[in-house]
Amino acid sequence: MVGELPGMTLKAIGIVQNKVKQAPGSGYKWQKVVSKIVLDGSLTEALDNLDEFSHIIVLYWMHWSTEPTPIKVHPKGRAELPLVGVFASRSPNRPNPIGKTTVRLIRRRRNVLTVQGLDAIDGTPVIDVKPYIPSSDSVENANMPSWITKH
Amino acid sequence: MVGELPGMTLKAIGIVQNKVKQAPGSGYKWQKVVSKIVLDGSLTEALDNLDEFSHIIVLYWMHWSTEPTPIKVHPKGRAELPLVGVFASRSPNRPNPIGKTTVRLIRRRRNVLTVQGLDAIDGTPVIDVKPYIPSSDSVENANMPSWITKH
Repeated sequence: MVGELPGMTLKAIGIVQNKVKQAPGSGYKWQKVVSKIVLDGSLTEALDNLDEFSHIIVLYWMHWSTEPTPIKVHPKGRAELPLVGVFASRSPNRPNPIGKTTVRLIRRRRNVLTVQGLDAIDGTPVIDVKPYIPSSDSVENANMPSWITKH
Repeated sequence: MVGELPGMTLKAIGIVQNKVKQAPGSGYKWQKVVSKIVLDGSLTEALDNLDEFSHIIVLYWMHWSTEPTPIKVHPKGRAELPLVGVFASRSPNRPNPIGKTTVRLIRRRRNVLTVQGLDAIDGTPVIDVKPYIPSSDSVENANMPSWITKH
């Protein structure tokens, strides 16, 4: 069943620009990083009204992840955390290396979005942006294992 | 800049199975729909530990969206809502038709996940599953325009 279906090829809609030129280690303070997302000029009007939202969801291609995908990983690459299935982690090294991050939208000027908290390095291809809608994107009282919050 | 970058081709990791055989109209009660996500057998162990989370994020290919992508849309296809840029909507008809939904994980048995609330029709290719982590996936006090919550 796994395979490349017809038409499942992605187009970059834009590119990330920020000061992070290489993948930093685990624990990097992405929350403070301000990035620009420069969209293709043909898509400028497709961004209209997005700045009515304070937060957006960015989908991007984690192109810096080039190693073969493991079945199991230590979350955040930390050997003291349990070895878990790669789908139970947010490792960039997964069958389809698509990152999903919710970020604050600082401003939109024509085809350029300025955002805070995007954990993607300079040059990352962006494949989608969506408005963040709390009623469907957030869950109250979600449960998770204790290892996920270990700092 | 828009274009197909080398290697940006998706592999289906699994397929949605549920009772919804065609795209229903706006307002369909997806929240109650229970779906199975049947992963390729080679990825079974990559699901280990995922059931320690109550909720997961599913990325899927909205293959039922075959019309040319518009620049502007009426959210939910409702003409009484303002015409907005497609990236300010959650329309399936977007440059890369990737859906992102947070769902409740009811159970995992080997390579099969049973989930509630996935708004994808039967046969939809699944491209990623990720654990839902409130501290990064949810935002408190996010703002949005009034039209998004009009029922």
